[in-house]
Amino acid sequence: MKQKRIEDYGIQIGTMPKGPLNKITDVPGVTVGHCTVDTPEHKTGVTVVLPAQDNLFKNKVSAASFVWNGFGKTAGLIQIEELGTIETPIALTNTLNVGLVHDAIVEYMVERCEKDGVEMHSLNPIVCECNDSGLNKISQRAVGKKEVFEAIANASADFQEGDVGCGKGTVCHSLKGGVGSASRIIEMDGQKYTLGVLVQSNHGRLSDLVVNYKHIGPELVERQLADSPVDKGSIIMIIGTDLPVSDRQLKRIIKRCSVGLARLGSFVGHGSGEVMIGFTTAHRICHTEEKDVVPTFQINENKIDLAFRACAEACEEAVLNSMVCAEPVTGYKGDTRRSLKEYL
Amino acid sequence: MKQKRIEDYGIQIGTMPKGPLNKITDVPGVTVGHCTVDTPEHKTGVTVVLPAQDNLFKNKVSAASFVWNGFGKTAGLIQIEELGTIETPIALTNTLNVGLVHDAIVEYMVERCEKDGVEMHSLNPIVCECNDSGLNKISQRAVGKKEVFEAIANASADFQEGDVGCGKGTVCHSLKGGVGSASRIIEMDGQKYTLGVLVQSNHGRLSDLVVNYKHIGPELVERQLADSPVDKGSIIMIIGTDLPVSDRQLKRIIKRCSVGLARLGSFVGHGSGEVMIGFTTAHRICHTEEKDVVPTFQINENKIDLAFRACAEACEEAVLNSMVCAEPVTGYKGDTRRSLKEYL
Amino acid sequence: MKQKRIEDYGIQIGTMPKGPLNKITDVPGVTVGHCTVDTPEHKTGVTVVLPAQDNLFKNKVSAASFVWNGFGKTAGLIQIEELGTIETPIALTNTLNVGLVHDAIVEYMVERCEKDGVEMHSLNPIVCECNDSGLNKISQRAVGKKEVFEAIANASADFQEGDVGCGKGTVCHSLKGGVGSASRIIEMDGQKYTLGVLVQSNHGRLSDLVVNYKHIGPELVERQLADSPVDKGSIIMIIGTDLPVSDRQLKRIIKRCSVGLARLGSFVGHGSGEVMIGFTTAHRICHTEEKDVVPTFQINENKIDLAFRACAEACEEAVLNSMVCAEPVTGYKGDTRRSLKEYL
Amino acid sequence: MKQKRIEDYGIQIGTMPKGPLNKITDVPGVTVGHCTVDTPEHKTGVTVVLPAQDNLFKNKVSAASFVWNGFGKTAGLIQIEELGTIETPIALTNTLNVGLVHDAIVEYMVERCEKDGVEMHSLNPIVCECNDSGLNKISQRAVGKKEVFEAIANASADFQEGDVGCGKGTVCHSLKGGVGSASRIIEMDGQKYTLGVLVQSNHGRLSDLVVNYKHIGPELVERQLADSPVDKGSIIMIIGTDLPVSDRQLKRIIKRCSVGLARLGSFVGHGSGEVMIGFTTAHRICHTEEKDVVPTFQINENKIDLAFRACAEACEEAVLNSMVCAEPVTGYKGDTRRSLKEYL
Repeated sequence: MKQKRIEDYGIQIGTMPKGPLNKITDVPGVTVGHCTVDTPEHKTGVTVVLPAQDNLFKNKVSAASFVWNGFGKTAGLIQIEELGTIETPIALTNTLNVGLVHDAIVEYMVERCEKDGVEMHSLNPIVCECNDSGLNKISQRAVGKKEVFEAIANASADFQEGDVGCGKGTVCHSLKGGVGSASRIIEMDGQKYTLGVLVQSNHGRLSDLVVNYKHIGPELVERQLADSPVDKGSIIMIIGTDLPVSDRQLKRIIKRCSVGLARLGSFVGHGSGEVMIGFTTAHRICHTEEKDVVPTFQINENKIDLAFRACAEACEEAVLNSMVCAEPVTGYKGDTRRSLKEYL
Repeated sequence: MKQKRIEDYGIQIGTMPKGPLNKITDVPGVTVGHCTVDTPEHKTGVTVVLPAQDNLFKNKVSAASFVWNGFGKTAGLIQIEELGTIETPIALTNTLNVGLVHDAIVEYMVERCEKDGVEMHSLNPIVCECNDSGLNKISQRAVGKKEVFEAIANASADFQEGDVGCGKGTVCHSLKGGVGSASRIIEMDGQKYTLGVLVQSNHGRLSDLVVNYKHIGPELVERQLADSPVDKGSIIMIIGTDLPVSDRQLKRIIKRCSVGLARLGSFVGHGSGEVMIGFTTAHRICHTEEKDVVPTFQINENKIDLAFRACAEACEEAVLNSMVCAEPVTGYKGDTRRSLKEYL
Repeated sequence: MKQKRIEDYGIQIGTMPKGPLNKITDVPGVTVGHCTVDTPEHKTGVTVVLPAQDNLFKNKVSAASFVWNGFGKTAGLIQIEELGTIETPIALTNTLNVGLVHDAIVEYMVERCEKDGVEMHSLNPIVCECNDSGLNKISQRAVGKKEVFEAIANASADFQEGDVGCGKGTVCHSLKGGVGSASRIIEMDGQKYTLGVLVQSNHGRLSDLVVNYKHIGPELVERQLADSPVDKGSIIMIIGTDLPVSDRQLKRIIKRCSVGLARLGSFVGHGSGEVMIGFTTAHRICHTEEKDVVPTFQINENKIDLAFRACAEACEEAVLNSMVCAEPVTGYKGDTRRSLKEYL
Repeated sequence: MKQKRIEDYGIQIGTMPKGPLNKITDVPGVTVGHCTVDTPEHKTGVTVVLPAQDNLFKNKVSAASFVWNGFGKTAGLIQIEELGTIETPIALTNTLNVGLVHDAIVEYMVERCEKDGVEMHSLNPIVCECNDSGLNKISQRAVGKKEVFEAIANASADFQEGDVGCGKGTVCHSLKGGVGSASRIIEMDGQKYTLGVLVQSNHGRLSDLVVNYKHIGPELVERQLADSPVDKGSIIMIIGTDLPVSDRQLKRIIKRCSVGLARLGSFVGHGSGEVMIGFTTAHRICHTEEKDVVPTFQINENKIDLAFRACAEACEEAVLNSMVCAEPVTGYKGDTRRSLKEYL
């Protein structure tokens, strides 16, 4: 079933051209998979982003990260910062499930490397999280190996958004949040490149909400939707691209996600961990590289603004997609989070 | 002459209470002074922020900095980061004048320390800059010792905004930028504290400009105001407060200036250096402290959101004040930058 | 059984006074526990450092971290950096076990908080690692919940060093590495404070080894001990103190561990992740603090050199203790790592 | 006159092959120039490192920086960090002269760009400093435009070391410090590359001094040389290379200078600012690049250890050269700093 996305409500975010799916999977080779845990006690799950389909440990992708607000538990960032690479699928889940999902990614890569005949003794799983404890009984860690393997098996180019996978129990600007995505096309030297963003949205206050320059938050509060007294919960932003950028350039680009967030009204509250992780498929780093010196590319820094704008626009639209694609969800304590789509 | 500020146009930024002057100088002890250089060739100057009136080298203020986009030449940041203190007036000027202004601050503090009987062999001047070369013949470095000393001598609580001091030649969202300020009041344990922001605005594209949720940029472009093809030029944000925060907390707070910028439509372009420098007068660090262990304060981190919001609101309003208080300025090449006030 | 430590060989590291145990547990309230997994296939384990004996989530310790070389998988650092606190026991294990140990720490704190009547929906476990795959069949993740709970139950002030816990399978300068510790006493305003270091040593090349200015590495290589061609494997340094330092000051202090490492001959090789994590018990941060403004302390920065030196000395001695307290260990592939004590 | 360097005393630092001059100028295209100010009141000066001989603003060099201890006033670092480039000569001088030298570099580049027909409105001068106020009357800023231009005019491949240029008044481990240099050769894919280090040494305590594993400090203290009670004064390390490394890789490499320092006995004291700045001539970044995507190179990360070791060795030897090449110097207050060469 095709989901109704923010542009289907006549709302155009920004001015840049979009990819065919308008999702992170417009970047060639990237797939996304979910496994949703939906029981009376649990509204949670796991979402995986696969930057490439071959063995990622053997052929790593160039990567960068930026921590806007480090009130969060994302694992794997110090090695991204040091080496500029990602060597596993990127998993997103709930806060207290980081450990089990981390172990599941290890298990998956141990098996995958054995199968592919790749020697592997060390691994840096990337596991991101948002806190869904408002709707999900988080202390029980409902996501394990089975769910992670299922999400990986499910991964494809055309994935669902909204209250699925890691987004099942998240809350955004006091409405239902979830998984959302968008993409933008960038032309360089006559060639088209794609930059896509996938978010797990779980941040913001209702009264602050802005949709494409319309500050609708106060009106929704008046319509007696409960607002959160504090901005807590986090947002994870995964940025994928095939732009031939260096890791330093990639870091500069992904920081611009924060512009997209601010346009939606977020103040990046104390309790809201905000983490960006980016990768480019343009440079694969071979684990067993034999040459000492390796040719690569970077973009002309004077042209980087286009990528900045693409990142901000795609992030803003991805958050809105995460909200309008979500159905209302009632948590284990009986509270219901409404969907933004009811108010557009 | 009282200047007409953004609130005088009926535009209210945010919801928090403001200080009596609605300027950074609402923080007790803080003063600001300008010296403007306005000749056919030069539209430039220097602005100083004095965090306190006594000898700053002897009694340093607690401080923090955050570099959002490091395409800039601000001097003095590595020592703020390491030691968490500022020990000189903060000076703002044009890009190529950093050196002479730096030397003038040294001269001022050498003289001041001699007068005050303070031994001083090392000094960390804080000198910030924006590039005003669109209107100002920047290669000639028109700001020197005389101008810096005059700005310090002029410093007072009630200072002018707009095209004065370091803001004489700056350009913001393709309109005239300049110096602007605003403040917010924060209550903690029943006591009132102030957080104020002063900006030197010189960033942004016209087509992106948003004023309090109104995306007026495209309309102004249609009215045949020239837009800049790229977002370059920088913005400096000085944040002063008397909140009893630690330097780590202060760093978290001043980062939220970026939310204010994004609300105005900025994408933080490649060429736009964005630097935040904050200080609190609540902790003075004595250069010749005799005790080994020194009592201090920090705020309850669970209450820090109020300061985040104050910082974002004050930054947003400060930029708007810098624009509406500015008169149109014609540069040495004959180009004129209009004032936002003509379009409100 | 009392172990023979480096000072028992007549080797004095540095000049500062030591605590009564000369271990990190000289810091009041700090305990350390091991669980060792020693089977034909597995030479590994887990070690926990408890910064305090009461509920750490309820009363957090002030903390800081520094990543010297981020080729490592330590979890929990971004929140330490942002908030300056640690709220769980610190666990050290092998590289691929980070996930399961992370989940075990969550389980332990969920149970502990339930018992203590503390509401907890979010948690930032600190899990450090070294790669012991030379001696240990790492792909099987032999450390789980049972081992972590046992290590916590075992925690005491007087703990074993060498090939125990997380140090069972580690290799240091091509000899047997392991867990080691040392402490130094610092006097401030007439009061005595303690700074202690605990290391999991797994780094360095034999030919580079220096013991107290004696470059013994080349001689040991000549005695036909196999040297590693590359410096890989990592070292984790946990620094505990009761000094009333701010988190910024603590970060400055723990960086000086790297001086201790360099004195032992380490070049901090590419493959050797080097991570410092420090805490002070002097500032406890109450999770449910009711006051808005909280009194605290910092030390006079002019006196911080004493803490720098203490940290470097204790780190250097801790690594040597980890080596001389270790018995030779034979790994699952039949290789034996000798103990430094055989060569002193 | 050929100076007697540390290897001429039979002391070999490390094991790697050296360049023909064993100086940073072994990197093709790099030159170094001094201007020394030697009057009864002033023992100071300026040293410049020219990474290339063509217009550096037009063709920037790839660069990275690392601040080990930020108690220092080095200007220009935030832009290196953001953009990974250096676009001016690198100047080293005394602490209070940073402003005037900064302005002189602007003046030089304004003139140079006019001559070369390069449009330039913005510039990021790199100005480093050490505090020579023990021997030099620092408050009078004896280094200005004339001295900087003279140093640039003097720049050549074979430059003097010791008490010259920026090293005239510096003090290292309580002996005479100064300018020193060394280089190492690295082979990659059969091609030879050079990595060189130049230091301005002004750090350390005498009692801590170690020369090639010999802890000679205490003996020198006994011979009644005055020791400094604190480690203050700073060291600047400039690292040049023609290795085809990315800016991230370069940053990793230059951090290893700190290993060289620690081997000499430094504890990196509170008052000792320690700053590394590196550049590679392998990637020139054209200011007016027309292509959007630019080919470049990086080295295989698995081979980076060789560069780490080269950097540590060259830094250690450079500091020793700075000391043994220096003649004793008597300062304006009558104190004399002896040369290490008297004690070898």
